[in-house]
Amino acid sequence: MGGCFNMMLNFHLVVILMLAICGVRHRMGMAKAEELSLESVKGKVYTLDSVREALIRQEDTIVFGLIERAKFPMNSHTYGGGEEIPGFAGSLAEFVVKNTEAVQAKVGRYNNPEENPFFPENLPPSLVPPYPFTEFLHPKAASVNINKSIWKLYFDELLPLFVASGDDGNYAQTAASDLSLLQAISRRIHYGKFVAEVKFRESAQQYEPLIRAEDKEGLMKLLTFESVEEMVRKRVEKKAKVFGQNVTLNNGDEKNVTYKVDPSVAATLYKNWIIPLTKDVQVEYLLHRLD
Amino acid sequence: MGGCFNMMLNFHLVVILMLAICGVRHRMGMAKAEELSLESVKGKVYTLDSVREALIRQEDTIVFGLIERAKFPMNSHTYGGGEEIPGFAGSLAEFVVKNTEAVQAKVGRYNNPEENPFFPENLPPSLVPPYPFTEFLHPKAASVNINKSIWKLYFDELLPLFVASGDDGNYAQTAASDLSLLQAISRRIHYGKFVAEVKFRESAQQYEPLIRAEDKEGLMKLLTFESVEEMVRKRVEKKAKVFGQNVTLNNGDEKNVTYKVDPSVAATLYKNWIIPLTKDVQVEYLLHRLD
Repeated sequence: MGGCFNMMLNFHLVVILMLAICGVRHRMGMAKAEELSLESVKGKVYTLDSVREALIRQEDTIVFGLIERAKFPMNSHTYGGGEEIPGFAGSLAEFVVKNTEAVQAKVGRYNNPEENPFFPENLPPSLVPPYPFTEFLHPKAASVNINKSIWKLYFDELLPLFVASGDDGNYAQTAASDLSLLQAISRRIHYGKFVAEVKFRESAQQYEPLIRAEDKEGLMKLLTFESVEEMVRKRVEKKAKVFGQNVTLNNGDEKNVTYKVDPSVAATLYKNWIIPLTKDVQVEYLLHRLD
Repeated sequence: MGGCFNMMLNFHLVVILMLAICGVRHRMGMAKAEELSLESVKGKVYTLDSVREALIRQEDTIVFGLIERAKFPMNSHTYGGGEEIPGFAGSLAEFVVKNTEAVQAKVGRYNNPEENPFFPENLPPSLVPPYPFTEFLHPKAASVNINKSIWKLYFDELLPLFVASGDDGNYAQTAASDLSLLQAISRRIHYGKFVAEVKFRESAQQYEPLIRAEDKEGLMKLLTFESVEEMVRKRVEKKAKVFGQNVTLNNGDEKNVTYKVDPSVAATLYKNWIIPLTKDVQVEYLLHRLD
């Protein structure tokens, strides 16, 4: 009886996720910006539905970020040695990210549990009164931060895939667009904590024994839906085509369409990094869920 | 003979601009990112063609910026009184913009004559070696900065047009997205300096008497092509539709399409502010062109 209930719950989850990731959306005559804003609910409620909506919306931000970074050539000086900035041991990109994170920390960015800094060790305290963000995650969530890995793969593997070689001197602007894209990717991957918490609450009976046994493989299996992942990759690739095309008033001939970023790069980013790292975050979070 | 030459030159300019703004693009099998990057040329050359390409590309950035700002509700606390941040007399948005500009100034953002700060009076010097940006503008260009007007219209008039009411506590993220959009709008408007310089060089004979007579109206008339402006607005509205749609794998039914930002807002932004202010910048720049 219990097994049957679990099976049904799991089936329910798969159906919801499939619908979610297919992008089937409830369209109830939404028209005004008020109704479209997904993040405007005070005392935010996290459900499988709202988490799914947030993940889909974040895809757009990530694709925009790729396109905006591709405006600049590699500008490798941005990532050069440490001698360029007097009194700072690190690259220009590191200087911009560290100092901009510090500015944003002072006005409370990292009070929101959806945000994870790249340099948590250098963060000044917030100067503004704390906002009452919904306490949805287990307290151990704060310790799950894989930004060091994201940082490395971003500069070592992702950038060379889609950025033209060359140098136009716009290092500050380049680093600023790196920061935006890094924040978007990091936010998406660490949203795995919310995905995991929602799933855990919906079928704790399934997760608890695996967590107690520290069965990473079992947890990973429970969190993996290959057909769903395939659809996410396809949708992201489609978004890269739609958002990265050169729009003219007389578009129509689909031949000779050029894209600002090769759409397969967006799909690769999701396939090789975002999807697996999100699952790593989920497993890592769940392992501490019963602490 | 001279008049005829001038007429032909002017006709030539109009044709190029019309082609430009219609979005007719030379498509010579461009495929790789290298060939698509418009800003990767070292020792950048400014021509009517390159200026036109830059303006068109900047439209995408502005539309992305609108969509990204619309992710958040108004969050009016971001623009509230001055008491929130101890030791800082200004709003949270002002705090983020001033301090982020300072970070970017230290790594040379404002060495590029295409960039204009919102708070030039508080800018620390650059700590990095200067990059040899092309010296294309008249030295007086640096004094043309209408960011105070852009700031005011952005917060007083533009934001209420497309941002949902509400408060989700993400003030730092809201201010960061304001900064990106403000920078994109400012860059586009101040690109008028380059437009004006290119036009001046192509037909100095036409401009010089008007400049000497300080004939603002005459200059404005010479710079205005209403049919071209109309096409820009239409293209920007189309971009807002393309980039702001909710992309799903089974798109196709164009009915019930919803947009993240009302496309008419993008057109209004161009019609009411970007196009007229760009011309103001052009006139202001030209008035000093013979100093």
